Amino acid sequence: MRVRNKPWAKDRIAEHPQFVVSEPAIWRGRWQERFGNNHPIHIEVGTGKGQFIYEMAKAHPEINYIGIEIQMNVLVVALDKLIEESLPNLQLLHVDGGSVTDYFEDLEIDRVYLNFSDPWPKTKHDKRRLTFKTFLASYEKILPFNGEVHFKTDNLGLFEYSLASFSQYGMILKQVWLDLHNSKFEGNIMTEYEQKFSAKGQPIYRVEAYFTGKK
Amino acid sequence: MRVRNKPWAKDRIAEHPQFVVSEPAIWRGRWQERFGNNHPIHIEVGTGKGQFIYEMAKAHPEINYIGIEIQMNVLVVALDKLIEESLPNLQLLHVDGGSVTDYFEDLEIDRVYLNFSDPWPKTKHDKRRLTFKTFLASYEKILPFNGEVHFKTDNLGLFEYSLASFSQYGMILKQVWLDLHNSKFEGNIMTEYEQKFSAKGQPIYRVEAYFTGKK
Repeated sequence: MRVRNKPWAKDRIAEHPQFVVSEPAIWRGRWQERFGNNHPIHIEVGTGKGQFIYEMAKAHPEINYIGIEIQMNVLVVALDKLIEESLPNLQLLHVDGGSVTDYFEDLEIDRVYLNFSDPWPKTKHDKRRLTFKTFLASYEKILPFNGEVHFKTDNLGLFEYSLASFSQYGMILKQVWLDLHNSKFEGNIMTEYEQKFSAKGQPIYRVEAYFTGKK
Repeated sequence: MRVRNKPWAKDRIAEHPQFVVSEPAIWRGRWQERFGNNHPIHIEVGTGKGQFIYEMAKAHPEINYIGIEIQMNVLVVALDKLIEESLPNLQLLHVDGGSVTDYFEDLEIDRVYLNFSDPWPKTKHDKRRLTFKTFLASYEKILPFNGEVHFKTDNLGLFEYSLASFSQYGMILKQVWLDLHNSKFEGNIMTEYEQKFSAKGQPIYRVEAYFTGKK
């Protein structure tokens, strides 16, 4: 997602370490301590402007959420939501989605969300897709046995690729939706992008898949 | 698929045992002998009017095809194609798709095709879907290790169900197409139904999946 450059974003992020964790690596293995409870922790890799994770955190106070986003210009929009109304169960990390094992210990995370990830449509860029096997390996490491990845996208090519990638990694598809907004799925919380593009009538694809240890 | 009743279908089928095998169980384990060569054998479960399997057999003389269809009123249309122009590498069976193990020995078949199978949309009828686990177990038995099922449909609900069913059975999704006719897939041979309904702009879904022995 291309967004306007915001030169002030860096300072605003630095000024709010209670929301955007300044040295996330030191909390590795101690996130429950930081949240002050032992609730399960769900992360979103590629949080963007944060609407999904913010609304999820509001709707599910019994779960701790961590939103990960490398692009400062969008992360700062997520931050602004917390500045306006803070939530005790939501933290943001300004780090790369490919390095989750640097910030979370084995089994520390209970679920991974991926929403409208960059499709990287060229075959030679497949390694950059957040559903490429190296990313799956890092999610598997921080999740428990049978830990789930919940993924949605409007990108046909990325969804085709991801279903095969999950399966070939050894994950099991628990459920698949080929038109989420016209399905019986309840409690869908939309991302900013999802709200905008689904209004044009494009189907939203969704899958829940879990790791089995079979590779 | 509802079709007009054809009282003459039964006789016409009985009169052409060289095309619609009259006692298929006696050929169990001996299909290569019947075809007179040792080419691989691909079957289509639910052949309908036979356009797919007939065109496949024409396009791939190095493969033997067997089309299976329980409904006489449509099978007879497939038979008429063979009466008009016979093909040495195509045989038809007037039997139930759920009983393939009665007609084929373990490992005797090299690939299973399922095309536009009845969606049985009610949850209580899931056991009748040709991608339900009991059917998958029978395909697995007659296929070799890593044997493939190639499935296409325009039915969104059946495709969602089947992807999860394949995966949960332990099959691996080799490749998925969410809009076959607008993809790079080459050599697609359409069924009668596919020709008719894709002209209305509905996407055709397709998947290739293989068995791994992991259940």
